[in-house]
Amino acid sequence: MPAPIAIAIHAGAGTILRKRITPAVQQQYEQELRQALEAGVHLLQQGGSSLDAVTAAVMVLEDCPLFNAGRGSVFNSKGHHEMDAAIMDGHTLKAGAVTGIQRIKNPIQVARLVMEKSHFVFLAGEGANEFAREHQLSEAPDNYFYTEYRYKDWQRKQQNAATGKHLGTVGAVALDTNGNLAAATSTGGITNKAYGRIGDSPVIGAGTYANNNTCAVSCTGTGEHFIRAVAAYNVSCYMEYKEVSLHEACEQTMQKLEMVQGEGGLIAVDAYGNIEMPFNSEGMYRACYHPDGTMDIRIFR
Amino acid sequence: MPAPIAIAIHAGAGTILRKRITPAVQQQYEQELRQALEAGVHLLQQGGSSLDAVTAAVMVLEDCPLFNAGRGSVFNSKGHHEMDAAIMDGHTLKAGAVTGIQRIKNPIQVARLVMEKSHFVFLAGEGANEFAREHQLSEAPDNYFYTEYRYKDWQRKQQNAATGKHLGTVGAVALDTNGNLAAATSTGGITNKAYGRIGDSPVIGAGTYANNNTCAVSCTGTGEHFIRAVAAYNVSCYMEYKEVSLHEACEQTMQKLEMVQGEGGLIAVDAYGNIEMPFNSEGMYRACYHPDGTMDIRIFR
Repeated sequence: MPAPIAIAIHAGAGTILRKRITPAVQQQYEQELRQALEAGVHLLQQGGSSLDAVTAAVMVLEDCPLFNAGRGSVFNSKGHHEMDAAIMDGHTLKAGAVTGIQRIKNPIQVARLVMEKSHFVFLAGEGANEFAREHQLSEAPDNYFYTEYRYKDWQRKQQNAATGKHLGTVGAVALDTNGNLAAATSTGGITNKAYGRIGDSPVIGAGTYANNNTCAVSCTGTGEHFIRAVAAYNVSCYMEYKEVSLHEACEQTMQKLEMVQGEGGLIAVDAYGNIEMPFNSEGMYRACYHPDGTMDIRIFR
Repeated sequence: MPAPIAIAIHAGAGTILRKRITPAVQQQYEQELRQALEAGVHLLQQGGSSLDAVTAAVMVLEDCPLFNAGRGSVFNSKGHHEMDAAIMDGHTLKAGAVTGIQRIKNPIQVARLVMEKSHFVFLAGEGANEFAREHQLSEAPDNYFYTEYRYKDWQRKQQNAATGKHLGTVGAVALDTNGNLAAATSTGGITNKAYGRIGDSPVIGAGTYANNNTCAVSCTGTGEHFIRAVAAYNVSCYMEYKEVSLHEACEQTMQKLEMVQGEGGLIAVDAYGNIEMPFNSEGMYRACYHPDGTMDIRIFR
């Protein structure tokens, strides 16, 4: 039997209401999810690494204006786009993360470079932007990140001095033929967020975690709760210290999240290629490819 | 028997070499540690909260130019001081954290306000500074943070294009008469660090964590490794899922840190007032007050 491969992706949870989505729009979302999933699957099938697969899948989602990451990022309270991303290698436990990235097309690439080309794990703001420019990552003007839907949403939130409940984030977790796990997450945060607000996505342990001994996890939801629950690492600890299955560890973690009123979900894969995608919001954009070659693309339950 | 109280503080690990410290200097450090510890003990004895106790202890350490936090913060690669801090309430699992704070005397107060007065957990850079100014926290000019020793150290590092191995950070963990645990950490980071580098101190789960069901933890050391090991939350998970003592959980966490070449230590207290202060560096500035009223102030083993 060949070594199993598996990959799961998500593109956020929370603002999806079944009654407001038309079949045509749903199809469009599913098409984008498929494209991102296939980018990862293709690499894994060629023997590529889980790190490359999660990077590739997240880049497709970042390039799509439908999702709140990269191009489709929401507007913050000052009308800018501040993006966060993180990646972790389950083989080496190395990680890279950035917060407050501006005018860079693919924040996940910056996180990857922080992991591979710096002595640091986590870079913020202008320092992270400088690092990205030094490594000649693709920049884009502000209007590249403009989407009418996000702009109107921001204007409404500004009038009400409200922050969004946009649980938009994209992420991917994968297992490659060498048995290596990896996780990646990228987000524009929440609409009208305070300048400088950091959610769970770039926080290693909260929104992103990978360890070959247990699992790879990427979260999406009300970031503050995921930070307080150290959600991603909790899945891993539960598996390692309670010696339970990925399924059980994910269920327990969702319960912990609910104890702090967390809303959203997560995707996770273990070293056997088992995939879990629990969520407590009405929907979660998600897709996965199992070791047996079957594929699943869903938005609602 | 009255309800037990306990508090432990640290003021960094790493650059302390026994052969280079004179008895007079050692006495000066111990005096500062005693003052910080007593600030916390005093509050706890009056029935004050563990949150107030860790805040008070950390503020004394932030105000002391000897330690790398607040006033004594190191210089970053641009010659500025960028400070990080975090606090967590073990009763509510609420948390507040800031990174890249500038010209504010007590970053731990900003973290506390983020926890108590915002919908967020983690704020970065100018956004965090704006938030601090809006809440009228004490500001200080750049020269308040000038210390000759740190400046010379920075100039040397600049010449060698090296980053420091300054494992300086301050922190406190406490148990109050209501059985509530709290943890707080504050740091200036590492000398000549890249602009925007975030260490483990403000990362909930990595450098700071508290949960009444398990323990409160504050770490000091090579931050990147503590992030990758999700060190503080690992102590808590080990206790919760393996049902072992605080001592055992701390030992196991130090082993995990060593697996990723982490250097430094941590302080931890549980709901019974047990205190652990393990480290793998030559020394760690530390002090603690036990439920039986005994006090310990140490630098080396």
